[in-house]
Amino acid sequence: MSVMFRPLLAGLGLSAALFASASVQALEVDKAIEYRQDALRVMAFQTGPLGDMVQGNIDYDAEEFALRANNLAGLAHLPWEAFIEGSLQDGDHGIETDALAGIADNMDDFTSRAETLGEETATLARMANDGEEFNDLRRQMGTVVNTCRGCHDNYRAD
Amino acid sequence: MSVMFRPLLAGLGLSAALFASASVQALEVDKAIEYRQDALRVMAFQTGPLGDMVQGNIDYDAEEFALRANNLAGLAHLPWEAFIEGSLQDGDHGIETDALAGIADNMDDFTSRAETLGEETATLARMANDGEEFNDLRRQMGTVVNTCRGCHDNYRAD
Repeated sequence: MSVMFRPLLAGLGLSAALFASASVQALEVDKAIEYRQDALRVMAFQTGPLGDMVQGNIDYDAEEFALRANNLAGLAHLPWEAFIEGSLQDGDHGIETDALAGIADNMDDFTSRAETLGEETATLARMANDGEEFNDLRRQMGTVVNTCRGCHDNYRAD
Repeated sequence: MSVMFRPLLAGLGLSAALFASASVQALEVDKAIEYRQDALRVMAFQTGPLGDMVQGNIDYDAEEFALRANNLAGLAHLPWEAFIEGSLQDGDHGIETDALAGIADNMDDFTSRAETLGEETATLARMANDGEEFNDLRRQMGTVVNTCRGCHDNYRAD
């Protein structure tokens, strides 16, 4: 059964690294660090226009706000599986990471914060989809940003 | 109204680059290239276990398959907004990119292929959520992979 797929995947022209297994049980430390940094940058990219709108740097656009809020909500659960053992700042990997060693000692709290981010971003997306007023969206965006910041304050260097 | 948010966002400790505007109208070429490469790597990471399962490299696990299929479906619409004018291989940006200049001349086809990927990954996720048999999931995964490959063959270097 595997024979029919090998040429398909090989034909994609993706490097072995790009198609390496992402199974948690087999996740390598370097892949985990790269992945979570990629995923967090994608989240930040989608958060950018939301931040710009609530700060008044760009005009509020309801359609754009809803698009970014939905994208952010869809991404918010992704990075956390990759904060695996050995991949934090005290790990023997030689890769630059801001992920503090304390994550491993406080995984319940870390996971709880990640779940809160999922809930708060889902609330923001639902509110935007429901056409709620900008003042309310702005307030909820503040909650989202504080959720990001709470985790950074505790588990991220600098 | 912007005053209350500036300290919140500044307090996140994110660099200006990470919180730069992602609005399509204001998207800078270097940010666009970085973002789409990040997003495509995140997609590849989530695709990895699906590929490994259909190839028989790892055991089929229905829960893991469904998780990765849903993650992939949620990501499949993200990268395409960033293939903007000036960001392709013929652009004056000095950044390494495999995105061929032909994308700009064939944007309707490029967009149509992106939409097809969204549909095919959504189908895969729905089938996995519905508990369809592995043989059928494997067949649909082949369709997804061929959709990836079709776009790579036409619009990606190497």
